[in-house]
Order: sequence, then C-alpha cells, then structure tokens
Amino acid sequence: MSVDERREQLIAVALELFSVRPPEEVSIDDIAAAAGASRPLVYHYFPGKQAIYEESLRRAGRELAGRFEEPSEGPLSERLHRVMGRYLDFVQSHGPGFAALLRGGSVAASPGTSAVIDEVRRAAHDQILSHLAIPSPSPGLRLTVRAWIANAEITSLEWLAERSVPLEELQLHLVQEFVAALTITAAREPALAAELAAFFADERPDGPTGRLVRDLAGLFAVPGIAEAVTALATASSPSSDEPSPQAND
Amino acid sequence: MSVDERREQLIAVALELFSVRPPEEVSIDDIAAAAGASRPLVYHYFPGKQAIYEESLRRAGRELAGRFEEPSEGPLSERLHRVMGRYLDFVQSHGPGFAALLRGGSVAASPGTSAVIDEVRRAAHDQILSHLAIPSPSPGLRLTVRAWIANAEITSLEWLAERSVPLEELQLHLVQEFVAALTITAAREPALAAELAAFFADERPDGPTGRLVRDLAGLFAVPGIAEAVTALATASSPSSDEPSPQAND
Repeated sequence: MSVDERREQLIAVALELFSVRPPEEVSIDDIAAAAGASRPLVYHYFPGKQAIYEESLRRAGRELAGRFEEPSEGPLSERLHRVMGRYLDFVQSHGPGFAALLRGGSVAASPGTSAVIDEVRRAAHDQILSHLAIPSPSPGLRLTVRAWIANAEITSLEWLAERSVPLEELQLHLVQEFVAALTITAAREPALAAELAAFFADERPDGPTGRLVRDLAGLFAVPGIAEAVTALATASSPSSDEPSPQAND
Repeated sequence: MSVDERREQLIAVALELFSVRPPEEVSIDDIAAAAGASRPLVYHYFPGKQAIYEESLRRAGRELAGRFEEPSEGPLSERLHRVMGRYLDFVQSHGPGFAALLRGGSVAASPGTSAVIDEVRRAAHDQILSHLAIPSPSPGLRLTVRAWIANAEITSLEWLAERSVPLEELQLHLVQEFVAALTITAAREPALAAELAAFFADERPDGPTGRLVRDLAGLFAVPGIAEAVTALATASSPSSDEPSPQAND
C-alpha cells in the first residue's frame, strides 16, 4: 500500500468502528487490529485517537452532505422524501456513532467535532433553500429550515434509541412536517404566499403533501373539530392586530 | 456567613458569571473576586472550576424547570404561551452561558452537563404531556413533543445569535408551531382526534391558536392555494394505503 492508500484505509476502518461504537469504546489498538496494522504504524499517520476520530468524522460528514444532493426536478416534497431516505439510511448504518456524536457530552467532543456537525447542518440548510428557490429567504424562513433540521436530528436519535416506528414512517412524517412548517411560515409572511401557491400546484396526490392534505381533511371531518376551527377563523378579535395575545395574566 | 451561606453565595456568583460568558472565559479567580473571597476559600468548597460549573448548571436547570410549572387552567395554547414567556426570559438573561452549553463542543462539556440538559428536556416533555392530559401518549405524540422542544432550543439559540425578531414574536410562533405539530400528529393518529376536538373547543379567538387559524385562513384566500390544496384533498389516489409514496425513482 502507498502512504496515501494506507492513510485512507486507516480512516475507513476507523469510521467503521466509530459508526458502531461510541468513541470511548474504540482504541488505537482496535483500529490497528481492524486495519491489520501495528499500533506504531497508526501513530505514524495520526498523533492519537482524537485526530483519527475527527478525520473519520470529517469523512462521514462529507458523505452525509453528499446524500443531500438532489436534482431540482419534480415536486418538492418528493425530492425531500428521496433525500430523507438516503439520510435515514446513513443514520441507520452509523447509528451508535451518530448518536454519540449528536448527544454530546462525549469525552471526544471538541471544537473539531462541533465544526463537522455545523457543516452538515449548514449543507442541509443550503440544499433546502436552494430547492425552495426563493431569492432572498427571510430570517423567519431560515429559522423554519433550521428548526426542521433539528427536528430531523432529534427524531433520528429517538428512532435509534427506541425504533418504535418503521423507518419509512419517519421518512414520510419528517417530509410532511417540513410542508406544515413551510405553510405556517407562509401564513405569517405574506411575501411567501406566491411561492407556497407554486409549491402546492406542483405537488401530486400520491406524494407526501397529497397524503398529508387528505389526512388533515379526514381529521377535520371528525365531529367538533371543523366547528371549533371555523369559530376561531370567523371570530372578530378585538386584539387581532396587537403583537401578542391578551391572554397573559 | 455560615458554611452553607458561603457555598450558596459562591454558586450564585458563579452562575451569574457562567450566564454571561462561556465557561472557558470564567476562572476560579473571577469567581473568587466576584464573591469577595480568596482563591483558597473557593477551593475549600469546590475541587475545581468544573465542579462549580456543574453545580451552578444544576441550579440553573432547576430554576428553568421550575418556570415550566403552570396551573392546568384555561386554553392550552395560552398556558404554553405563558410558559414560553418565562422560558425566553430565562434564555435572554442567561444568553451566552445558555448558548455555550447547548451548542456543545465546550471544553467544559461532560456527562454531568449533558445530564442537566437531559433533565430540563425531560421536565419540559413531562409538563407538556401532563397539560395535554392524554392518559397513554403514543410514541408518535411523545416524539412530536420532543421535536418541538428541540425546535424551541434551536430557535432560542438562533435568536441569541442574531436577535432578528422581537422575543414576543418567537414566543407566539413557538406556541403556534406546537399547535400545528399537535394537529399533524392527530391527523396521523385517529385516537388523538377526540382530544384535538376538545383542545380546539377550549381555545379563544384572541389566543395563539385563534390567531394562527386566521393567518392560515388568510393564506388560503391567496389565489391558487385553496385550489391546489383542494385538488390534492379530493384526488382519489390509487396508492393511498401504501406505507410510502410511489414517487421514488
């Protein structure tokens, strides 16, 4: 093996180990054994475990960010659905390491590991905004995107811990939650309404948005719900242009 | 000062310092100076900076969890609105320390600091479920609550970094996002529909839910949106009982 090949091999082997175990439970000896190399050889390439951990994380971060790439074609919710399929596949195959990294509090947490997390989040944020194709996204819209990314992370972590629902359900639900968050944001920001009209016009009945719309229509057919919501919608509120509700005590 | 009083004073002083600066930028000397005490006296009470940091965090965590307490009276969104007012007030007054703690990657991050974060999250989760008063919350509902808590955290962190909107707007928006998340969850889980009907029936026109409903009604009056959504709602989808959309390639 050339020097470069050996370095690559060590990183690949380390990434596999750090994917299935938290960093505390992976030693330089484990990495050397898995790579069929000696301990001094590993130290020849990396000053220590932290360096090889951070390098393998950077590698994993680039791979994950690569999975966010998606052609700008077809209904938006279906694009996001495909991306989330690839994301959740990554989560599943790197479970324990992904959890240890995102849960924080690990002895291996460092500014370097935080930087990797931040870069992946930024890549996700930028990809979503580029698919939304809104020229100057408002602070509110950016915040919606970031909050949804946090939702995807926490949902993935919970799923890894409990696996209480099939992964395909998570995939669909996360996409639908994005559609809901986008809709709410547009309800607050009239400048987004035209974009939202174009978004809904592109969606298909059997895509995530169509299914969500029908689920909501079913919910509003439940006795009491439509009546209560209609009463709220048609009420003339004396304080409706105040910045905060009058319900505080 | 008695031994207990001095210990309390040191923790209070440390908490103030750790609220306004990241832990890296607070030294034992700073704590001693702010408390009007000597460095050896601080070491008499605490083995080192990490111990006093973790103790002051536990104190802050208890204070924050205490702010989640709210009488089970009145419309649910108004209760949550009051709680969020107290939460955001805490975030504002402990900004830099709150951000350093939640952003992770700090040299002071440890299993002890993670435990404090986890306990505050659990307190928030339990309070919300107790206000929802649903006897056996489903895994999906629990996940919705946890994801919304993550939303509140990330939104707070973004606000601390950029302060791009008034705090009262965040407060209202977070509550409305909870209402939306609850609604979507009920759309997926028919067992929640009766609870949702009761929830909407209790809400008032000038509360957060009433305002959200009217914003959404306004959005659906924008040309194109109602038509597109209605088309999705009324389409007969051949694949509507498949577990995942047929849009994947």
